[in-house]
Amino acid sequence: MNISLLTDLYELTMAYSYFKSNRNEISTFELFIRNFPENRNFLVSAGIDDIIKIISNFHFEEEDIMYLKSLKLFSDDFLDYLKNFKFKGDVWAIPSGQIYFPNEPVIRITADRISAQILETIILNQFNFQSMIASKCARIILASRNIPCVDFSARRDHGIDSSLKVAKVSYMCGFIGTSNVLAGKIYNIPVYGTMAHSYIMSFESEEKAFREFLKCFKEPVILIDTYNTIEGARKVLDLLKEGYKIRGVRIDSGDLVKLTKEVKQLFLNNGFDIKIFVSGDLDEYVIDDILSRGAIVDFFGVGTKMGTSSDAPYLNGVYKLVEDEYGMKIKTSPGKITLPGKKQVYRIYENGIMKKDIIAFEDEKIEGEPLLKKYIENGKVLIEENLEESRKFFKENLSRLPEYLRTIKKSEIEYNVEISQKLKEALEKLKLEHISDTKIN
Amino acid sequence: MNISLLTDLYELTMAYSYFKSNRNEISTFELFIRNFPENRNFLVSAGIDDIIKIISNFHFEEEDIMYLKSLKLFSDDFLDYLKNFKFKGDVWAIPSGQIYFPNEPVIRITADRISAQILETIILNQFNFQSMIASKCARIILASRNIPCVDFSARRDHGIDSSLKVAKVSYMCGFIGTSNVLAGKIYNIPVYGTMAHSYIMSFESEEKAFREFLKCFKEPVILIDTYNTIEGARKVLDLLKEGYKIRGVRIDSGDLVKLTKEVKQLFLNNGFDIKIFVSGDLDEYVIDDILSRGAIVDFFGVGTKMGTSSDAPYLNGVYKLVEDEYGMKIKTSPGKITLPGKKQVYRIYENGIMKKDIIAFEDEKIEGEPLLKKYIENGKVLIEENLEESRKFFKENLSRLPEYLRTIKKSEIEYNVEISQKLKEALEKLKLEHISDTKIN
Repeated sequence: MNISLLTDLYELTMAYSYFKSNRNEISTFELFIRNFPENRNFLVSAGIDDIIKIISNFHFEEEDIMYLKSLKLFSDDFLDYLKNFKFKGDVWAIPSGQIYFPNEPVIRITADRISAQILETIILNQFNFQSMIASKCARIILASRNIPCVDFSARRDHGIDSSLKVAKVSYMCGFIGTSNVLAGKIYNIPVYGTMAHSYIMSFESEEKAFREFLKCFKEPVILIDTYNTIEGARKVLDLLKEGYKIRGVRIDSGDLVKLTKEVKQLFLNNGFDIKIFVSGDLDEYVIDDILSRGAIVDFFGVGTKMGTSSDAPYLNGVYKLVEDEYGMKIKTSPGKITLPGKKQVYRIYENGIMKKDIIAFEDEKIEGEPLLKKYIENGKVLIEENLEESRKFFKENLSRLPEYLRTIKKSEIEYNVEISQKLKEALEKLKLEHISDTKIN
Repeated sequence: MNISLLTDLYELTMAYSYFKSNRNEISTFELFIRNFPENRNFLVSAGIDDIIKIISNFHFEEEDIMYLKSLKLFSDDFLDYLKNFKFKGDVWAIPSGQIYFPNEPVIRITADRISAQILETIILNQFNFQSMIASKCARIILASRNIPCVDFSARRDHGIDSSLKVAKVSYMCGFIGTSNVLAGKIYNIPVYGTMAHSYIMSFESEEKAFREFLKCFKEPVILIDTYNTIEGARKVLDLLKEGYKIRGVRIDSGDLVKLTKEVKQLFLNNGFDIKIFVSGDLDEYVIDDILSRGAIVDFFGVGTKMGTSSDAPYLNGVYKLVEDEYGMKIKTSPGKITLPGKKQVYRIYENGIMKKDIIAFEDEKIEGEPLLKKYIENGKVLIEENLEESRKFFKENLSRLPEYLRTIKKSEIEYNVEISQKLKEALEKLKLEHISDTKIN
């Protein structure tokens, strides 16, 4: 399915007006997040891989054009223009796996106005969602104290595309794999899974179920909480004593602190080092809580609340015109002011730890590491992201996060994001112009 | 892309064990919701159309089999079995657009155990998400007091599949259309949209932008809050006085109560009946609030909070084994008890209004309307849903909702969902058996 029509209709009505009024000059749009969702102290870029593919492949097929014609809104010359459409501009982005903050431009597109405009909806759709998931996963990684996590979210994610990209993004953030087989196939990431309660219930007894499973798999993980967790663990112990190899047990319900301790102790007392897999309504808050209270866990299966970022289920990224051939642009609606001009974000480190960011014009000479990289130049892709590399990159970036941001609660100290002097001055000048414009008219 | 591998790995490891242990007897699984999300008083079925298509088309392609082989978990005879897999069972469901409640079976699948099991993940993925959105939209429809709503959510939905299905489901629930052009094309639903702030900012002045847009479109809707909403409205008024036809104005920010009243009054005072479109962070709570406080609105554009169901971003639907050839089944994990056996839901009306539901075995003789319909029999599709019919069906069902449930707050009275005497007895008997089973072992 060609997804280039996955756009708000207004992108096309605006494009039509630009086409008709010869307003298709080179323009620059930037995507940024307005403010932090609940409890977030930093955000993580993600989905740039998909966005670059979508932009470089953006085109309209005959059936798309036919559909647009059927709307009776557009002239034939505009539809012909769309039929031959190809993105020929430049795209800059903060790479997937990099940490960023509100108001920082994360994607910057410079292209003829129509090209830059009609990409808005799909870019926001992919970035808002994937960055939200990455930002959630970073919190889970912080809370889980190096205990490996696996994505179990497919059944509660918002549809097909969501389930695949949640698996990908969680892996990028350090999850060790996913239960989602299609995601494993597409992204070449490890897949995990053993059995459900229904499996246990399909046999005359729990023991019979365990024995049948052991016939098929070497060293499996056994689900022990279908009827009574401790009884389930005892049955696993009996099988271990018989000589079966069992990698671990999974506990999906009940008092996780009490049960994981009792079950681990039961095995250790009998000389077996059995891994404890814990799942069931986990998120960074529950993980932090049960680990603080002494739960003994070797692996976490994290599902629903991660895959929907349930405490903050959207990121309010916006995509705004910042400059065109007539000059720099701002919007002055209440609470929705934008920073004008083509910008870059510079990051300053101290002893390898992030110290502050500076948002500046792209052509300013500013100390620090420029975060936005050029992905597409004149329509040609310069960088294709690789998931394994993004995963390493995120790990590095997370290690540079200052201590005061490494918390799942709202940090009392905010990370310092400065605006360059030149940018401040340009903003003030534009604000004054708009105020006088409003008064005169 | 074939999505049959969009499944948790454990569905396949379980299937493999059933295959190897000759446990592929006819079994019945049911999908139900455990409990209400935040503030919900009823739920709405949705996505049955997609689920029926997915089941009837469920198959594994050569590349899927190759991938599974590469996991080195499964024997060749099992992979051959999957290669020839086709669903041959029965599927019952509560149709899209019907109202239902927690613990009621919404989808019931009877098939060989492997077939019924491996559908679990994808069915839950689609149903949990689409029913969550439908249940959210129903609340927005109740709050908006017959003022038409349009889906504006694409940029914040969780990916591509999500954005399409949010458009579809919101339309089913009575929204008049969507901004999402691809959804308009696929589902044949009306598309809406005019201009963004960036459009206005692309011209030397707001007035110039309005004039250029009017050259392209007859009777458009004009966005008036880019700089100053009242000034924007005055510019529209001037254009109306010049003789331009303008359908309405859109306000996307600011004090919506104050601004909509002032703007409407400005136009009425000058003899123009201009429609007011309102958008910007709307949901049932905001809509109810601003209407209660006197906002004058002709259309709502509802986005982010609807498309992510932000106050309740997941539905905890589960899919459980309830019966097989060895008898009825329950799970007894704490807080996770299931109702045994193949069930039907019967609805009793009084004066055309829903009075109570009874969950009973499918073969009991119970008064009332049976809600579950047979969609697939022996693998053959009997019912294909039609979006326009589901939309009418939902409207009818919503009109039968009792007054005490027509609130966006949690109703003080819960709708009465009874469990039949026979079902209660069977549940008690099975509970006793499990307790004795646990004690003996």
